[in-house]
Amino acid sequence: MNATAIRQIDNSVLERIRAVVGDAGVITEDADKAPYLHDERGYYTGATPMIVRPATTAEVAEVVRICAETGTPIVPQGGNTGLCGGATPYEHGGEILMSLTRMNAVREIDTLNYTITVDAGVILADVQKAADEAERYFPLSLGGEGTARIGGNLATNAGGTGVLRYGPARDLCLGLEVVLPDGRIWDGLTGLRKDNTGYDLKHLFIGAEGTLGIITAACLKLFPKPADIQTAYVAVCDEHAAVELLALTRRITDDRVITFEYMLRDSMEMAFAHIPDTRDPMAQKYDHYVMMELAAGDAAAAGLREMLEAVLTEGMEAGLVLDAVFAESGAQAADFWRIRETIPEAQKYEGASSKHDISVPVSKVADFLVEATEDLRKLVPGIRPCAFGHVGDGNVHYNLSRPLDMSDEDFRALEPRIHKAVYDRVVSMGGSISAEHGIGRLRRGELETYKSPVAMDVMRTIKASLDPGGIMNPGKVL
Amino acid sequence: MNATAIRQIDNSVLERIRAVVGDAGVITEDADKAPYLHDERGYYTGATPMIVRPATTAEVAEVVRICAETGTPIVPQGGNTGLCGGATPYEHGGEILMSLTRMNAVREIDTLNYTITVDAGVILADVQKAADEAERYFPLSLGGEGTARIGGNLATNAGGTGVLRYGPARDLCLGLEVVLPDGRIWDGLTGLRKDNTGYDLKHLFIGAEGTLGIITAACLKLFPKPADIQTAYVAVCDEHAAVELLALTRRITDDRVITFEYMLRDSMEMAFAHIPDTRDPMAQKYDHYVMMELAAGDAAAAGLREMLEAVLTEGMEAGLVLDAVFAESGAQAADFWRIRETIPEAQKYEGASSKHDISVPVSKVADFLVEATEDLRKLVPGIRPCAFGHVGDGNVHYNLSRPLDMSDEDFRALEPRIHKAVYDRVVSMGGSISAEHGIGRLRRGELETYKSPVAMDVMRTIKASLDPGGIMNPGKVL
Repeated sequence: MNATAIRQIDNSVLERIRAVVGDAGVITEDADKAPYLHDERGYYTGATPMIVRPATTAEVAEVVRICAETGTPIVPQGGNTGLCGGATPYEHGGEILMSLTRMNAVREIDTLNYTITVDAGVILADVQKAADEAERYFPLSLGGEGTARIGGNLATNAGGTGVLRYGPARDLCLGLEVVLPDGRIWDGLTGLRKDNTGYDLKHLFIGAEGTLGIITAACLKLFPKPADIQTAYVAVCDEHAAVELLALTRRITDDRVITFEYMLRDSMEMAFAHIPDTRDPMAQKYDHYVMMELAAGDAAAAGLREMLEAVLTEGMEAGLVLDAVFAESGAQAADFWRIRETIPEAQKYEGASSKHDISVPVSKVADFLVEATEDLRKLVPGIRPCAFGHVGDGNVHYNLSRPLDMSDEDFRALEPRIHKAVYDRVVSMGGSISAEHGIGRLRRGELETYKSPVAMDVMRTIKASLDPGGIMNPGKVL
Repeated sequence: MNATAIRQIDNSVLERIRAVVGDAGVITEDADKAPYLHDERGYYTGATPMIVRPATTAEVAEVVRICAETGTPIVPQGGNTGLCGGATPYEHGGEILMSLTRMNAVREIDTLNYTITVDAGVILADVQKAADEAERYFPLSLGGEGTARIGGNLATNAGGTGVLRYGPARDLCLGLEVVLPDGRIWDGLTGLRKDNTGYDLKHLFIGAEGTLGIITAACLKLFPKPADIQTAYVAVCDEHAAVELLALTRRITDDRVITFEYMLRDSMEMAFAHIPDTRDPMAQKYDHYVMMELAAGDAAAAGLREMLEAVLTEGMEAGLVLDAVFAESGAQAADFWRIRETIPEAQKYEGASSKHDISVPVSKVADFLVEATEDLRKLVPGIRPCAFGHVGDGNVHYNLSRPLDMSDEDFRALEPRIHKAVYDRVVSMGGSISAEHGIGRLRRGELETYKSPVAMDVMRTIKASLDPGGIMNPGKVL
């Protein structure tokens, strides 16, 4: 939190806000407020005298104006699926929570421009669906897509499984509409591919986790729908082979690769042990695996399987690939995905774990996996790495389960030292301590430790200049 | 210019700067200074008591510290190929010009990470070459690539011919090293594909034209080298057919299209009339043309010609395509490119012209071309549109040559009204008055007129917060 004293919000302010959004636009009963007040992971439970649910951008602006005038802090919230507590108010109750969920209209689909314009409160899966119905493809895809809202995805620059080819949320956004901390509306909602008229303001708000303004709408890029996707489950020699296979695949296919997910055998074993309907795709056991997918349009769909075969043949000849299984149907591809996607859930059954959403340059992923695991095994003998993730983005979910013979409690006591070992290694390799989940409230201390003081200072300068009253999601990120 | 009084730079300041960079790092003789003091288009000739040519980031930082301390304005300059005067000092002589051309080392190529890290002063063509030698591809490509420097390309968010598939300079940059207006170095020179640790500062400096700091190095994305490129010159029914053919091509090829350039017959005729070795690729004459290219990697190279044929067959069946010629060799593809690339030069022989680097949503390109031309013909009967450009980016170089029977002088007198007609139409369609060339000094007045006051105000707020002394390239952009 910044230094300003925390104070309760005056009733007169709440009444002015109610007058703007109407009774249907506020929630004040404790039972009704509850679902909005805890974060996805259950780390935090906050308090607020009022949840405001504006129906229009004009209402958002009017509410923010009142808050700016009265120095009332606001916590913006989308689908409340964030993993770092960025959308949860603090416990003191001196903040308004603004939920964007009522603003959920698809404003426009422009098929020739390959764009969709949506309110911030549209559910991510609904953006995908609207695109699909217009014979287009919106590639942002992640675990929480059934409840996450696009405004939150943009505010946190969400990643997911499509980043390798299509980029994170930031790269998918052409324009934004934002309510600024003083209540003015910045209409930057363009669908332009090129616009060099001054500073690119949208990038300031994307990934800022609501600390610089409230995203109310976005114009997003759409893509052609792939006509065919071919999936293979591949056993590779080691971590280095996984990284080299990616470089080779990019070259041979000229970036037709849309998925490239690494899994350690041990992490797959957890899925096989605890998740129904998961089973080893191969007869023989290996230590390291990659799941890869290629995509093609109409005119190349027929040759896609051959392309994948060419990749794996060259990978075998290069001594990288040990074994491979092709998905012969959509159902089999879904089986492959099921292994990858249920690893985090399976890990819960293995007792306490320590999780890290880190990234390093792709070329250093293998070294990171080897060296971090060495560090950790020295620190906690018997610790069980459960690494998996988006190797194509240099993004590893480097999770660690407690040793089999250690209590959850003892393991948790070691967590600060585990985090330090992982992050020290990450930073020494030029990596990031939060690749796709953001900072929110959870990683503020670590950000302060690991981010350069110059970067922190520039961020604070920008925050102070755009939000001098400090009312936008105070105490998050910075 | 901002309101601070212009004053000459004290000799003591110049001597302090000389002490930092040494005699080899300064230019003070008029004859030696001259090439740095006029802009590419010859619109402006500025003055400066000293051109500083630092050899290292540390020297840049030390010089900026001196300038910050003494309130000495700095104009950063790369290859001096900008088209809006952004790198030319004002005539009053109260600014230092800092040329980055001595900082021209390729710092690192990381083939597995598909990245290259370079000093700001590396020539664009040398970045391409270094990538090529490492069996990788750097796709930023534009007319001035033999002299333009990558720092300037990033500071102006350069576009060019590769944007359709690979994006503008902004999209190709993963990390930056920047000297801030107070002389501190921000080391954001990472090669990470994902990093959600706070505000994305690099996007603030990219496209800011040196008004927020001096880019000293960049980490750039590389791509697989296409194994094959297939080129076709295509006659289309009209402007709308061009736009629809693009959408169809994206769909059929799943975005294998890397070039999609529109040309009006009249603009090609200018090339045929004035440029040696240009000739009509087709026997019959049409009004509207598209040059398109598809690219593929090793495993699909053999089928690329068939893919292009499939596109054109479907384009004909859809009634969009009238005729098409395939380039049967690299030489023939070069002939096609020669037409497209010499249009601006050819236009010089046709007397005075008025140029506009505009963009609209791709879906509105055809309407823009039709309606703007209607507007202009009413305003200046006999005016000769010479439109061409990157339709795939919604970016049209909407150039207009004077009527055959009008003097250059009379035409120039009409220019303000011509600009207004074009920009009014652009803005009414949600477009941009500067798609890829930037603002610099040339378009400041128009920016003020056409950009939203809220956006202008946010830009000024950011400028004031990061550069409170107003020393970084004052009077440019803002």
